[in-house]
Amino acid sequence: MVAKVAVEKLDTPCVLIDVAIVRRNIDRYQSYCTKAGLSLRPHIKTHKLEQIARWQQEAGAVGITCQKIGEAEVFAAAGFADILVTYNIVGPAKLARLVKLAGQVDNLAVVADSETVIAGLSAAFADAPKPLEVLVECDTGLERCGVQTPAEAARLAKLIAATDGLDFGGLMTYPPPGAIAEVEEFLVAAKAQCEQLGLSCRRVSSGNSPDMWNMAGQKAVTEVRPGTYVYNDRSMVAFGVCGRTDCAISVLATVVSTPAPGRAVIDAGSKVLTTDLLNQADYGGLFDYPQVRVAALSEEHGHLLFASNTAPFKVGARVRVLPNHACVVSNMLDSVYLLDRDGYAQQAPVIARGKVA
Amino acid sequence: MVAKVAVEKLDTPCVLIDVAIVRRNIDRYQSYCTKAGLSLRPHIKTHKLEQIARWQQEAGAVGITCQKIGEAEVFAAAGFADILVTYNIVGPAKLARLVKLAGQVDNLAVVADSETVIAGLSAAFADAPKPLEVLVECDTGLERCGVQTPAEAARLAKLIAATDGLDFGGLMTYPPPGAIAEVEEFLVAAKAQCEQLGLSCRRVSSGNSPDMWNMAGQKAVTEVRPGTYVYNDRSMVAFGVCGRTDCAISVLATVVSTPAPGRAVIDAGSKVLTTDLLNQADYGGLFDYPQVRVAALSEEHGHLLFASNTAPFKVGARVRVLPNHACVVSNMLDSVYLLDRDGYAQQAPVIARGKVA
Repeated sequence: MVAKVAVEKLDTPCVLIDVAIVRRNIDRYQSYCTKAGLSLRPHIKTHKLEQIARWQQEAGAVGITCQKIGEAEVFAAAGFADILVTYNIVGPAKLARLVKLAGQVDNLAVVADSETVIAGLSAAFADAPKPLEVLVECDTGLERCGVQTPAEAARLAKLIAATDGLDFGGLMTYPPPGAIAEVEEFLVAAKAQCEQLGLSCRRVSSGNSPDMWNMAGQKAVTEVRPGTYVYNDRSMVAFGVCGRTDCAISVLATVVSTPAPGRAVIDAGSKVLTTDLLNQADYGGLFDYPQVRVAALSEEHGHLLFASNTAPFKVGARVRVLPNHACVVSNMLDSVYLLDRDGYAQQAPVIARGKVA
Repeated sequence: MVAKVAVEKLDTPCVLIDVAIVRRNIDRYQSYCTKAGLSLRPHIKTHKLEQIARWQQEAGAVGITCQKIGEAEVFAAAGFADILVTYNIVGPAKLARLVKLAGQVDNLAVVADSETVIAGLSAAFADAPKPLEVLVECDTGLERCGVQTPAEAARLAKLIAATDGLDFGGLMTYPPPGAIAEVEEFLVAAKAQCEQLGLSCRRVSSGNSPDMWNMAGQKAVTEVRPGTYVYNDRSMVAFGVCGRTDCAISVLATVVSTPAPGRAVIDAGSKVLTTDLLNQADYGGLFDYPQVRVAALSEEHGHLLFASNTAPFKVGARVRVLPNHACVVSNMLDSVYLLDRDGYAQQAPVIARGKVA
């Protein structure tokens, strides 16, 4: 049991996670998915914490989503038994780790968008005790990974189904925000073409956070994988998906300089907030000081601007910054603080931080 | 002794550091400083590695520069005895750590740009065994921390000199790139005004990497603190400070998808390269493929664009990316690989990674 510390005693900069808001966000979206008949498989990239993944699972999540094997490995070691790795696994080192990981969990699945990736998975799993579930990744408009047409999805599905060591599980996409109709059209067609080949799509996995409230009733989709909803952030507020009071993550920082009228400097820079803009103006927003801009970041300094006839802060004042992008902030520090409503916080290690391989 | 691994065996993404280039960069700039009569106190933020700081010191560096106490603590523990922390230290937790740190090294110095910061340092060091050296931070045009006028610098210098537990050491600035004349004018005036008050500036510490070859002959300056010169990066090439063959850092990545003509995806995204643009177009440049753009980054994917009638890569190909900004890449992973000319690499822990407090 980690000791609790009063938030006033925490040194800065540090990342605060409001537990009550997290749990409300989890419950609210789980209820939505349950009502819509959708499986919820949250992406752990937003929090990278064992405790929060456990809350998501206790609320009803069917499993977790990871992007890299390294993330899946730490969550498997923490006891999570149903993991989807939404990544093309390439190269002998990673394939060997994937085989080992498959032996450690109840259900492991990955994706593939090319014959080369399928051939690698097949060679690695040909002699494995049970086949590996593989979903075909579909590019439904994001222009990242994924097959380009429903016909190509069906062609790879057939190849997976016919390949020793592999089990065709269905389709997966990471949809571009705001393209619900186009995504649905692609997935419905791809599923139909698989079925014409006698291949059943056990699951069709989609979902992002910006469109999270528009997933009910989408044809074909059986599973959704949002990540950011658990914390929310400044970009989600801008998307209109949530309000500021639904944002669970903030960076606690100290004013270290008030060098000139209209300027102040805080001790949180890009090494905490990152330079991700996500189409926002500025590098974050201050809770309690809407008139102050986080106008620039150095690595260890945040540059605040405000009207030069005002003096909102003195050196030593503490401020809370709402980051533009929650997921990347979770990746910057080895631990965050889980803050309760009594003003006390508990340090929690970010177990999947920096697991890029 | 850490075992060496052939670079072909390294899993991706990973950060490679070309040792021969690092040592050449260190020697070349140390020679320049020695000839110019300047003390070189490299900023460790670029590499955050014990080994490279040791090479810098062996070559003739007078000590190291850190931005945060947490960085200074790990380097002090590694045996570095002369450390300048170029930051306003604020708050009881950090001041207590600073007192402890001062007892562990031969020479510790910090900066201050306000009476509030000086008062905090004074209260912490009033009963310390020896006084703490404090430099006055001057804003010579960057608009970050620092006093705004030479007169204010002299006023704070006098306050430090008159304060129990503190020792006035001189002046410090982090100058804006390309403003050599303006910076010199400020520092010369501030030094003169200190001397008029009977206060000697033992050192005047300046320097950044973009202007590194213009420091010789600058009046007043006695010490320079570049960081990036040790690795160099895409922004330094753009500044004209170095060539691509002087860049020691690269990110080794694997092509995981070639989904459509003109597009490929690598397994290094913003969790390795960061979204720092530093005024560059694109998020990095590929060694060996100048015609390919690193056009966008997701957290775990790098999006490559090229002419659609070309096919430079197959899935599984490896590429090396030159990052826009070396320092921030060093902060993303727990270790990097020091690569020798024989093609073998040694893993090195990034001891100061994530030390933001």
